[in-house]
Amino acid sequence: MSQNENSYPTSARNKVKRLHERGFYDHATIHRILDSSMLCHVSYVVDGQPYCTPTFFWREGTKLYWHGSSASRMLRNQASGARVCLTVAHLDSLVLARCGFTPYADYRALLAFGSDFVVTDLDQNERAVFAMVDRFFPDRTAGLRASNTQEIKATSFIAMEIEEASAKIRAKGVGDDEEDYELPIYAERIPVRTVLGAPEPCPRLRDGISRPATLNGYSEGRLLEDALRDAYFVQYPNG
Amino acid sequence: MSQNENSYPTSARNKVKRLHERGFYDHATIHRILDSSMLCHVSYVVDGQPYCTPTFFWREGTKLYWHGSSASRMLRNQASGARVCLTVAHLDSLVLARCGFTPYADYRALLAFGSDFVVTDLDQNERAVFAMVDRFFPDRTAGLRASNTQEIKATSFIAMEIEEASAKIRAKGVGDDEEDYELPIYAERIPVRTVLGAPEPCPRLRDGISRPATLNGYSEGRLLEDALRDAYFVQYPNG
Repeated sequence: MSQNENSYPTSARNKVKRLHERGFYDHATIHRILDSSMLCHVSYVVDGQPYCTPTFFWREGTKLYWHGSSASRMLRNQASGARVCLTVAHLDSLVLARCGFTPYADYRALLAFGSDFVVTDLDQNERAVFAMVDRFFPDRTAGLRASNTQEIKATSFIAMEIEEASAKIRAKGVGDDEEDYELPIYAERIPVRTVLGAPEPCPRLRDGISRPATLNGYSEGRLLEDALRDAYFVQYPNG
Repeated sequence: MSQNENSYPTSARNKVKRLHERGFYDHATIHRILDSSMLCHVSYVVDGQPYCTPTFFWREGTKLYWHGSSASRMLRNQASGARVCLTVAHLDSLVLARCGFTPYADYRALLAFGSDFVVTDLDQNERAVFAMVDRFFPDRTAGLRASNTQEIKATSFIAMEIEEASAKIRAKGVGDDEEDYELPIYAERIPVRTVLGAPEPCPRLRDGISRPATLNGYSEGRLLEDALRDAYFVQYPNG
């Protein structure tokens, strides 16, 4: 295991095995991918069976938090301390190379490992829901209606200190074998982008209620990841 | 366990526990989500530790295939027969409701369960890589350079018969508690779309090589999922 203060440690669990040049372990790279994301896939084991659940998450320092339901399979089977792999993936382009065995895509993928901590305290639960909403939409919760005990009880959050993490990044486009560039075969890169559409106000808005300026970052045509990263730095200015 | 010929069976493993009205098990719904997707997250267990790896996949009938590397962690630790959860998620919109505890998103999520089968035969491996490329880009492999034994050996595919699967779909936008619509709070739905950018031809294309018409479905501004689904039905006209 190797480690320095600006990187996550590496071990057999997270070391990128293939194509070493694509592996990253430093906080800056890892956190940038995390803070550009909203959706993660959380993987856990129940009686030897793997489950992989998509959910929303956010980062505070070297901790990750995600959203569950008190009634969900994940939480009913899992006390604090279960091993977790939390994965985030951005597909950045499709790559059509001159051979079927060369890479098909540019991407950013991240695996984070640790043990979970299930938040059971109601006050902590309420603070977590506010933290999540405000992380995505800064200052949003200040104007929402107060939540009731039943709602707080029905929602749960899980936290995990990142023990190890690794990112794998490819951003190369077509990368054929040198001799293949001579072949009379068409090759290209097709960018893939996840963008925001035009916001659709609730048809039942009360008269005189307009879109708050705090949502300006979520504008039509913007990359979701840019909106998310900007929002993150409003809420966590120190990263 | 319940089953009919047009649905996947349900059991404790795949039955949607929360919000039953959002759960789907029928082939039509499950396959439509699968065939609109390229990226999945494959979750498996090694020595009690969960791993969740993003990779490309495709469907043939009730079988799923995905791409690995012979050298990867997944394959080096896993003979055929390991339990797998393969997950696909589409984020369709962000939902800003009037309360922090109401749903945050519209989405389509799918979990498929089964046991894997690692393809070790070289001929099968080569057929699998062609099937994958042609599933995404119909007829593409007919014009590619032939692959060599080293490339075929370095690539592996894994197959899984879907034993159980469930989809969870929300497509409702803002869904506040009835009394909350009276509150002077802004609420909206923001669509999220994964779209194709303008194709970028390889800068080292040979003179006179133009984009084949078979790639017309992958055009700027198109939804990735529409391009994928159209391509699927070219290659698998019977679904």
